[in-house]
Amino acid sequence: MSDLEIRPAVLTDIPAVVAMLADDPLGARRESPDDLSPYEAAFRRLTDDPNQRIVVAVREERVVGTLQLTVVPGLSRRGATRSIIEGVRVHSDERGSGLGTQLIQWAVDESRRQSCRLVQLTSDTTRTDAHRFYERLGFAASHVGFKLTL
Amino acid sequence: MSDLEIRPAVLTDIPAVVAMLADDPLGARRESPDDLSPYEAAFRRLTDDPNQRIVVAVREERVVGTLQLTVVPGLSRRGATRSIIEGVRVHSDERGSGLGTQLIQWAVDESRRQSCRLVQLTSDTTRTDAHRFYERLGFAASHVGFKLTL
Repeated sequence: MSDLEIRPAVLTDIPAVVAMLADDPLGARRESPDDLSPYEAAFRRLTDDPNQRIVVAVREERVVGTLQLTVVPGLSRRGATRSIIEGVRVHSDERGSGLGTQLIQWAVDESRRQSCRLVQLTSDTTRTDAHRFYERLGFAASHVGFKLTL
Repeated sequence: MSDLEIRPAVLTDIPAVVAMLADDPLGARRESPDDLSPYEAAFRRLTDDPNQRIVVAVREERVVGTLQLTVVPGLSRRGATRSIIEGVRVHSDERGSGLGTQLIQWAVDESRRQSCRLVQLTSDTTRTDAHRFYERLGFAASHVGFKLTL
């Protein structure tokens, strides 16, 4: 495979990122790739927030992966800062290429650079392949993730 | 019970908040209430970040509960902003008083004010009483929570 670059997302990456968010068993019901305006507004909020990083993985000038990393200060665990990974997507052409591992490794490295003591994420209970993937990378499935839709 | 106030935490609340963080089966191993300096540094980071809210519940001038709410913009779910609840603690004297419900209700109301479309949290798999509590409040245990300690 040719070289991969992981870099901050820019506004012109949004169509490719949204296409990946929608190309997913859960995302297909939740996303609206035909109307990008809510994503562009959210992207501006992300880039205005110094505790947010949204990156894309690019191979041969094509966006093939994405994730969001949020740095969260906190009091518990002796004032530990933690990071939260959200919105991990790998293009269907790239599954099995190791790209998911490279994206998570980027997030872990960036979390260390930001002096985080913990990296956390939640994964839908139906994504059993993803659970094995995170456990192989050293994550512990130690918590139950609760959500309330407003 | 006398009136309860939920208000933003201030620096002088830190000893009482840390005492509650430590008075917990998991927190007892993770906190250092005899050295408040890392908590005070973390508190300054929290108050400098407009997407963080750390509150205390006060009854008769005594801090009896706390939680942290983080507002997280994002691209997925049509650019939905979500909120994350962390560090929920209720003083041992107040268990069963409905204070936990009032704290979570505050977080849900504040999340609505911030136009969040989702409230989420994770709870250690061993905290089965907490899991029933969140389900009673309408949260769905739909995710697995993964953590990696750095």
